[in-house]
Amino acid sequence: MLNLDHISSNPLLPEVKEVMIDAVQNDYHNPSSQHKAGEQAAEKIESAREAVARLINAKDPKEVVFTSCGTESVNHAIKGVAMANRDKGNHIITSNIEHNSVVRSLKRLKSQGFKLTSLPVDTNGQVDPGAVEEAITDKTILVSVMHSNNEIGTLQPIKEIGEITRKKKVVFHCDAVDSVGILPVDVQLLNADLLSLASNTYYGPTGVAGLYIRKGVKVFPLLEGGAQENNKRGGTENLIGIIGMGKAAELAFRDMDKRLEHLQNLKKHFLAELPKYIDEYLINTTPDRSLPNLISLSVKYIEGESVMLMLDEDDIGISTKSACASGSLRASHVLVSLGLSHADAQGTLVVSFGLDNTLQDIDRFLNSLKHTVETLRNMSPLYKKKA
Amino acid sequence: MLNLDHISSNPLLPEVKEVMIDAVQNDYHNPSSQHKAGEQAAEKIESAREAVARLINAKDPKEVVFTSCGTESVNHAIKGVAMANRDKGNHIITSNIEHNSVVRSLKRLKSQGFKLTSLPVDTNGQVDPGAVEEAITDKTILVSVMHSNNEIGTLQPIKEIGEITRKKKVVFHCDAVDSVGILPVDVQLLNADLLSLASNTYYGPTGVAGLYIRKGVKVFPLLEGGAQENNKRGGTENLIGIIGMGKAAELAFRDMDKRLEHLQNLKKHFLAELPKYIDEYLINTTPDRSLPNLISLSVKYIEGESVMLMLDEDDIGISTKSACASGSLRASHVLVSLGLSHADAQGTLVVSFGLDNTLQDIDRFLNSLKHTVETLRNMSPLYKKKA
Repeated sequence: MLNLDHISSNPLLPEVKEVMIDAVQNDYHNPSSQHKAGEQAAEKIESAREAVARLINAKDPKEVVFTSCGTESVNHAIKGVAMANRDKGNHIITSNIEHNSVVRSLKRLKSQGFKLTSLPVDTNGQVDPGAVEEAITDKTILVSVMHSNNEIGTLQPIKEIGEITRKKKVVFHCDAVDSVGILPVDVQLLNADLLSLASNTYYGPTGVAGLYIRKGVKVFPLLEGGAQENNKRGGTENLIGIIGMGKAAELAFRDMDKRLEHLQNLKKHFLAELPKYIDEYLINTTPDRSLPNLISLSVKYIEGESVMLMLDEDDIGISTKSACASGSLRASHVLVSLGLSHADAQGTLVVSFGLDNTLQDIDRFLNSLKHTVETLRNMSPLYKKKA
Repeated sequence: MLNLDHISSNPLLPEVKEVMIDAVQNDYHNPSSQHKAGEQAAEKIESAREAVARLINAKDPKEVVFTSCGTESVNHAIKGVAMANRDKGNHIITSNIEHNSVVRSLKRLKSQGFKLTSLPVDTNGQVDPGAVEEAITDKTILVSVMHSNNEIGTLQPIKEIGEITRKKKVVFHCDAVDSVGILPVDVQLLNADLLSLASNTYYGPTGVAGLYIRKGVKVFPLLEGGAQENNKRGGTENLIGIIGMGKAAELAFRDMDKRLEHLQNLKKHFLAELPKYIDEYLINTTPDRSLPNLISLSVKYIEGESVMLMLDEDDIGISTKSACASGSLRASHVLVSLGLSHADAQGTLVVSFGLDNTLQDIDRFLNSLKHTVETLRNMSPLYKKKA
């Protein structure tokens, strides 16, 4: 199976597998227990926390909270800030192309009396920082804008937005689930007050993720119970997962430049070669200011779902939209926000690379894509009509 | 290290380790991806779901939602039911000896306008089902009572409470985190509408747990995002953990009787032998109607913390209270609710057995306990005064 669907799942690195298998075999005790066995487990968590803090340049590892998934981090951040700051105001600003975890958390808050401003994006998928500034009122308690988009790869002007929110004293959450570990993300440089990240993005396990909460930011916990995670998230910890996430963070920090170069080469090759294989398509991903590991393209006159299924027969995995949205039949709200027609949105493929891919993998994919597109277009009434 | 702190952490069974290591090595794709690799991962989740459904006798595996910990399950159940039924009423009934995840979820709801009735328990730690019935008003939207208490082991009359809530048409959540997999728990027999459980209780991994939601019960998700878990819990799944939890559920179901007998023998032996080693103590755990794997005892004139630390030097792990409450210095609300004096509460030890313990382990512990208690009492001004 050729994985060109890394945005849905990155493989575990051998070193990560090794520490996870070791953790399963050692089978540590509950980190909250106060005897030696508990302390040993607690130390494992703290060293993983330090590795994650280093990756995002948090001032203090205590600002990192381990969660169970990017979705938990986002729900915690958004609902937690809203509930804790309700006395200050009820207005929240976001963008039109956020991940469903942001969209649905905000929808829930709206039903509870919060007011939303959802900002449009330009044809590259970018939010205008000036529009954020204009939208801020004295009732605004939160701005939530994603670092990179998981369907089209656009990078947002987070630093510029962070300067505005800092100046206006509004809490800023950045959903960086698809960026952290792929690109340099520095919470201090970005002026982010909260930042969501996920371990699997940088080749760690699923089922474990993180939320950066800048010291002093008022946010209610989402999971309330014990005193774990410095009182910010109750529940017995996923120690095996956290150990894997810590190792993956350490490697992502160490190898960042090398990895970036590898992914950028794959992307460059893909974009240079694509026109030799198919015609009549749109590239939804701006070449610059986008994730190095993702390309969204809309192939005219055919359906993305059919392409995906036919490529699956060739043992090539891609996706047509976010795995998180795969239960839904509607056109992606992200593509619609870019101004794509419904027909073009239906023809969209998301190809996402990883460290395990080679230039030859891209060629193999493009070859299969060429045949698939030809076959499907030959069956397409729209294509025949045009011809 | 002799583990007599199983209530904080049960070791992974060899078969569970095996499937988890296999899952790490196989490194499955995202279950939401629609290509073959995704489908393969999704099948793993569904077969784990079936094993958990069988363990609690759920009618339909779809009624089982995988979560990240017992605390998440409880927060999801309590906050989710409250928020989804706010139009029907704002009154919730619970008991005085619930786990902190219940206590703190309800405290949060109280600050949002919900009214609580928290019922007292008798000296055995039991809630009177008649008191539940009397407390129900036409505004009552939820009753939440735990199956077993994690500090004293008391089993609540859940079946009787379930009959009342069913008759009165009030939603009933049962926190069975420390019971499922240890004792037979049948959601249909108990008339539970929601039931929280955790994998580690039955020798599966931490970082993964479950929430049973009876079909038709109205509850908002806690983690909102993608369509995972039949739209009841967004977020990429902890597949390695879920695979481990499924295997552990299968084994717990298969070996229930054998395990129960083993644990009951350990408990019987402990209670029979204890008076031969120390005097002047209280047993807070009723011998019948309590968990088979836990004994809470309060040793007079000394501090439980000191006993724990001295036993730790002998490589014996016990606890003095719930690991979830270990950040706190206050006397346990559970012990206070039983009517224990502050001094007796301070002298409390929680000894919890597991499948890996033998009768010899109990003897070794009792020997160490005897010496520890003698040493500490010789230093105790209270004990000297009395002598």
